[in-house]
Amino acid sequence: MKRRTSEVLEWARTLVEPALKAATGRLSPELGLAARYHFGWVDSRGAPLPEGRHGKGVRPTLALLSAEAAGAPAEVALPGAVAVELVHNFSLVHDDIVDNDAERRHRATVWKVFGVGDAIIVGDAMMGLAFELLLEESTPARSGAARDLVQATMAMIAGQYMDMSFNRRDTVGVAECWEMVSAKTGALLAYASAVGAILADAPPRTVEALRRFGQELGLCFQAVDDLLGIWGEPSVTGKPAGNDLRERKKSLPVAVALSSGTRAGETLADLYAQEHLDDEDIARAATLVEEAGGRAATAEAARDCMHRAAQALTAADLEQQPAEELLDLASFVVNREF
Amino acid sequence: MKRRTSEVLEWARTLVEPALKAATGRLSPELGLAARYHFGWVDSRGAPLPEGRHGKGVRPTLALLSAEAAGAPAEVALPGAVAVELVHNFSLVHDDIVDNDAERRHRATVWKVFGVGDAIIVGDAMMGLAFELLLEESTPARSGAARDLVQATMAMIAGQYMDMSFNRRDTVGVAECWEMVSAKTGALLAYASAVGAILADAPPRTVEALRRFGQELGLCFQAVDDLLGIWGEPSVTGKPAGNDLRERKKSLPVAVALSSGTRAGETLADLYAQEHLDDEDIARAATLVEEAGGRAATAEAARDCMHRAAQALTAADLEQQPAEELLDLASFVVNREF
Repeated sequence: MKRRTSEVLEWARTLVEPALKAATGRLSPELGLAARYHFGWVDSRGAPLPEGRHGKGVRPTLALLSAEAAGAPAEVALPGAVAVELVHNFSLVHDDIVDNDAERRHRATVWKVFGVGDAIIVGDAMMGLAFELLLEESTPARSGAARDLVQATMAMIAGQYMDMSFNRRDTVGVAECWEMVSAKTGALLAYASAVGAILADAPPRTVEALRRFGQELGLCFQAVDDLLGIWGEPSVTGKPAGNDLRERKKSLPVAVALSSGTRAGETLADLYAQEHLDDEDIARAATLVEEAGGRAATAEAARDCMHRAAQALTAADLEQQPAEELLDLASFVVNREF
Repeated sequence: MKRRTSEVLEWARTLVEPALKAATGRLSPELGLAARYHFGWVDSRGAPLPEGRHGKGVRPTLALLSAEAAGAPAEVALPGAVAVELVHNFSLVHDDIVDNDAERRHRATVWKVFGVGDAIIVGDAMMGLAFELLLEESTPARSGAARDLVQATMAMIAGQYMDMSFNRRDTVGVAECWEMVSAKTGALLAYASAVGAILADAPPRTVEALRRFGQELGLCFQAVDDLLGIWGEPSVTGKPAGNDLRERKKSLPVAVALSSGTRAGETLADLYAQEHLDDEDIARAATLVEEAGGRAATAEAARDCMHRAAQALTAADLEQQPAEELLDLASFVVNREF
């Protein structure tokens, strides 16, 4: 019988967290401290945190379910689940430096606590650990999983760089914005959704269907994230209201608004060109994005992606229960706060 | 007939540079620019530099010779040669941020030209590229070469971190200093010296002999680098005289001096504890390190390592000419400037 998403996430955590802790334990005590701090298991001095959590663990959960969807035990996916979580978190640690973000999940970021040098090195080490885990057994499935992970990682890095370069420009097209999202968020979620099947030696058709599901989920995830970046509740997102606007991010709703050809879009462009934005400007910018159709178009795109994600799961002969759980997890991710 | 080291380095460059340029060409144009700038092929705007060079290319040369030493054509080692050069250079790009170094090889460092964010991301991408190259063919030899590279990379990162953490301490033991050097410099040079044999499917005994050679060469290399960091000619090293002392580095000669139990060692410790070091202090510190035996002990250790490196090459049935060229290359590296 199908489990609720909260149960699935908890089940995945029970399987993945010990393996993730063991992997992190390979780092030297000092370097490992920064990693364990980032994962929310300990405070900055290494004292265990009660209920230490590091986010929802969507990616490793996708990895475990993808093995089950391919008819294999979840445990087959474990090295892939840990590797994808390490790569995701390495990118967060480095991104927080790049974006100069002082907080993540209501806690000071790694570079803020341990310094930029330590944060760079612990991020490098987390990326290396991910490949170490996959490569320490030399089966063709493991090599394939490592090869696909490096490709997803390279796509993610390229996407992060595109995102960053958007900040240096006045305007960004909607198509290139989607291209960036597809690389930055889609590639790693596609990998997470397929790695269990890859490690289970599932047929290419099965792997590809799961990969497509993850790719669409990634686009959807980012669309929602972009909506939350403007209209999310600070108490929920852990970031100030309208944070993406304050940073003049060229997120999807903003890209749509800027290229809408509407009066509201033009006014938004003028506002974005201003030297300083105060709280009133930010509230006004949010209204302008909405008037220019940015909010509605992004929400619709999110629904379309979700629809295609669901379709992908019917395109291959997947085990029914894990496939349904994958879809529920996708809905959970997408319906976070709207 | 045995070639001169300058010829061998030039021959290796001719083989490796096109492949390295092709690999870098996979990055997006903007991200690729920072990489090409780092390698010295272009200026910060992308204009080609005449005689663009990026260092001597010792690691890729070792890789090619190690294939020949194992009786295989040098070309077999090419993906390994490019991968090891990418990993080495990713570490330089990140290290320059960590160490706050504004210059490398008489040019502004990547972070100084393109910003810290770009330098972090291009370093990540160079590391990823290295694994992508090795993993894109899925033979057991390639997987093995990738697995060993990740282990060498993790050791290198751990060593870099140890080195950095030494800066936060008042004193450092000689043994732990060697441990750091072995990880930071030895592991990747050991890999470079063995990867050609690994990719050539050479017997374990051959691979291990070459690895030992590279490990000892790494220790020797670092010992020499540490000597140059204090007594090197600024015109040759590209760094101010006594640079390592100004930065209060716990390099090998300093570690020896600090734990020598001599009067000079104690005076040095007092000097290192001072808030500010002027040029006169630095000259005095150099003299104290020498008086406390740090210079002689490090030079002797370098000679010992070189001796063991040579011995390692006789321990396996290697092809004679490439083995001799490996040894000459090692001498060249070690005899750089003393």
